[in-house]
Amino acid sequence: MKFSVQNVKNGCRLGLITDLGKNGSKSIETPMCMLYTRGGNAPHLTLDVLKKIQRVPPIAHMYLSSLAEHSEAVSQFKEGIANFCGMQDYAVYCSLHDPATEVPSGYNEKSGTAIWTKGGKYKLDVNHFMQIQEAFQPDICEALYDGDTNKDSTRKRLLKAMDRTLNYLDEIQDKWKSSQKLQKTALFGVIEGGFSVQERQKSAHETVTRNVDGFVLAGFHNNGPKTETFDFSQVTEICQKTMECLPENKPRLMQNAWRPDKVMEGIALGIDMFDSSYPYIVTERGCGLVFRFNICASTEEQKGNGDHLLGFQINLADKKYVDDFGPLLEGCTCYACQNFTRSYINHLLNTSELLSSVLLMIHNFHHYFEFFHQIRQCLQDGSFDKLNSLIQNQKPVDSFDKLNSLIPIQKPEDS
Amino acid sequence: MKFSVQNVKNGCRLGLITDLGKNGSKSIETPMCMLYTRGGNAPHLTLDVLKKIQRVPPIAHMYLSSLAEHSEAVSQFKEGIANFCGMQDYAVYCSLHDPATEVPSGYNEKSGTAIWTKGGKYKLDVNHFMQIQEAFQPDICEALYDGDTNKDSTRKRLLKAMDRTLNYLDEIQDKWKSSQKLQKTALFGVIEGGFSVQERQKSAHETVTRNVDGFVLAGFHNNGPKTETFDFSQVTEICQKTMECLPENKPRLMQNAWRPDKVMEGIALGIDMFDSSYPYIVTERGCGLVFRFNICASTEEQKGNGDHLLGFQINLADKKYVDDFGPLLEGCTCYACQNFTRSYINHLLNTSELLSSVLLMIHNFHHYFEFFHQIRQCLQDGSFDKLNSLIQNQKPVDSFDKLNSLIPIQKPEDS
Repeated sequence: MKFSVQNVKNGCRLGLITDLGKNGSKSIETPMCMLYTRGGNAPHLTLDVLKKIQRVPPIAHMYLSSLAEHSEAVSQFKEGIANFCGMQDYAVYCSLHDPATEVPSGYNEKSGTAIWTKGGKYKLDVNHFMQIQEAFQPDICEALYDGDTNKDSTRKRLLKAMDRTLNYLDEIQDKWKSSQKLQKTALFGVIEGGFSVQERQKSAHETVTRNVDGFVLAGFHNNGPKTETFDFSQVTEICQKTMECLPENKPRLMQNAWRPDKVMEGIALGIDMFDSSYPYIVTERGCGLVFRFNICASTEEQKGNGDHLLGFQINLADKKYVDDFGPLLEGCTCYACQNFTRSYINHLLNTSELLSSVLLMIHNFHHYFEFFHQIRQCLQDGSFDKLNSLIQNQKPVDSFDKLNSLIPIQKPEDS
Repeated sequence: MKFSVQNVKNGCRLGLITDLGKNGSKSIETPMCMLYTRGGNAPHLTLDVLKKIQRVPPIAHMYLSSLAEHSEAVSQFKEGIANFCGMQDYAVYCSLHDPATEVPSGYNEKSGTAIWTKGGKYKLDVNHFMQIQEAFQPDICEALYDGDTNKDSTRKRLLKAMDRTLNYLDEIQDKWKSSQKLQKTALFGVIEGGFSVQERQKSAHETVTRNVDGFVLAGFHNNGPKTETFDFSQVTEICQKTMECLPENKPRLMQNAWRPDKVMEGIALGIDMFDSSYPYIVTERGCGLVFRFNICASTEEQKGNGDHLLGFQINLADKKYVDDFGPLLEGCTCYACQNFTRSYINHLLNTSELLSSVLLMIHNFHHYFEFFHQIRQCLQDGSFDKLNSLIQNQKPVDSFDKLNSLIPIQKPEDS
């Protein structure tokens, strides 16, 4: 895997990942979001349906919390996780945790960390981690880390997280050299240090000396839907000072429920790789994305019809859509908007038919991937600020808590 | 709608429905199964995915228990239920109840009956029924009926069910004449009488005089997964004597969770139209259909690999499939079998990912629709008995209760 920055303006990087994948055949423009998966596939969607969505990223985001329990079978299968999941057309980025699920705190030990699977707590030391990665053979692998820090962490916790993460990385790199199966897999190092500029910089420096292929910023929060309202203003300085320590020619990734305004903030901080857990979280809530990102549209069109009072999304289960025979989003070219009405989706949601999730996932992915395409175009032609204003003006009026009291988040178990 | 019988042998009818649909453009060979839907669409599947399944019946089975609550919106929509659901390529058969859900007992009144929706008990009198049908404009409509009888019903209950059903039919036909919107909709009368030959024959005679377009046999059971083991031997005589009262040139329909051996029995009783709730019930249980119906295959191939000990289906969540990298069914050409392994589906089921339902639904529909195609071919070329032996030899060893203690049925609410 190679990475080059083509253009930087106000911290925003326009870049290109090349030589990705086992054949080195894939290239991806950044900023980009990876395809969010569950159990190794786009949630609710078959490969065929996925292919009909425009601008699907050529790299799928898989994570051990969803797949580790099946790793012995994948190991016997011998052809790697992409083939096992029928996703051989996609490169695979493999992280520890699911960005859409909150990770419980207090699970780390010196010898290893834990991930949380359907079966509960699942311990991972370096040996076990390496066995799984050799079975999975992802294209990019996030190193094992202790990311159990947030705003309130003590300095002692920060130091522990940092030290352990570096120790794991050293052990992993040592074993990596002798692994035949992982020679073509890129390894991303994880930067810790919570909310401390000093520790972040130290972690960054140390990770840089390990000569990894890219960097993950973790330890700001514990993942899950709540990160939709993570306040980036409190980490702006920390991120900027951390980024200064990193070489320009390596990509930077951060997991978050990337709401559109947060994406814009992340890009301004110099992040290149995002995940697409946000459209999934929106889908599970029974909502559809309706935010506007067409900077060429008239002010009237950009405003929409006042739908986005809930901030970027509408709740299709709301009774006001019972007799709304328009598409989920006027002008959208996705399969769901071309074939179904808000009224029909409202009906599916209210009768708990899971086809609603299928249709919402199609639309929300389509809309989100188009949004990232627009971002790259705006970075190219110098209209990023204009796009930023358009997005920030659509920011939710209500707080996340208010939003969630209006729209209960459906967990897969309850739905 | 027209119907003609082309061939009868030992009570099995090979027939043809023509001039179906608002344009009279569809024709369907019988015996056939309608496409089972939930909320107006194939469960879990988008229209695109459905189109890729071979031999999907051109008629969708919708029911008021799933759609009545949304009927006001459909009425405003003005273009009928097929268009509302994006199913304009399919004819629609509209029944009262969902064959896959058990109907509670004791809900009928003189003025009308009740259906059970997500929101609970929903009363239907003839006026309301007519309003909904005018909004839905199905191609075939099952008349309102009181079908709350079974083996244990008293004679009083049988008579009440019969009388009410005939009264509803008279009222419906009276209003039908003056309904512009329903002129092209075929009306099926419902034959009641529980387990009494005498009452059944009386109900059949009376219904025949009403000059309906087809006949539904109801009142044997209360629908739902339990009907998978409904014992047809106890109603053979009743059905035969009832069929004798019916004109040959009108189709006969019965709702049931039509397990393959039961389908064969139903055909021998002279039933033409079946539903496909069975592959849905199997899907929700996490199972895949593996019964054989290729009468030309070798005895060895027909036996399979001993998989069908659970009777026609295998439980993909079973740990024995963890490292089984074969397709769900060897030789199957469906999308799921062509792209995914038993091991991967096992993983999806064990992590509760709903893509498992999507893949199982694709396979189970494909397999079931191919089975019905095979039945028609065998009726044509005289090999129906051979097919019957093949199917009966694969009958479940265990009782339904044992099967269900092994495989808990997942209800949509719990899944």
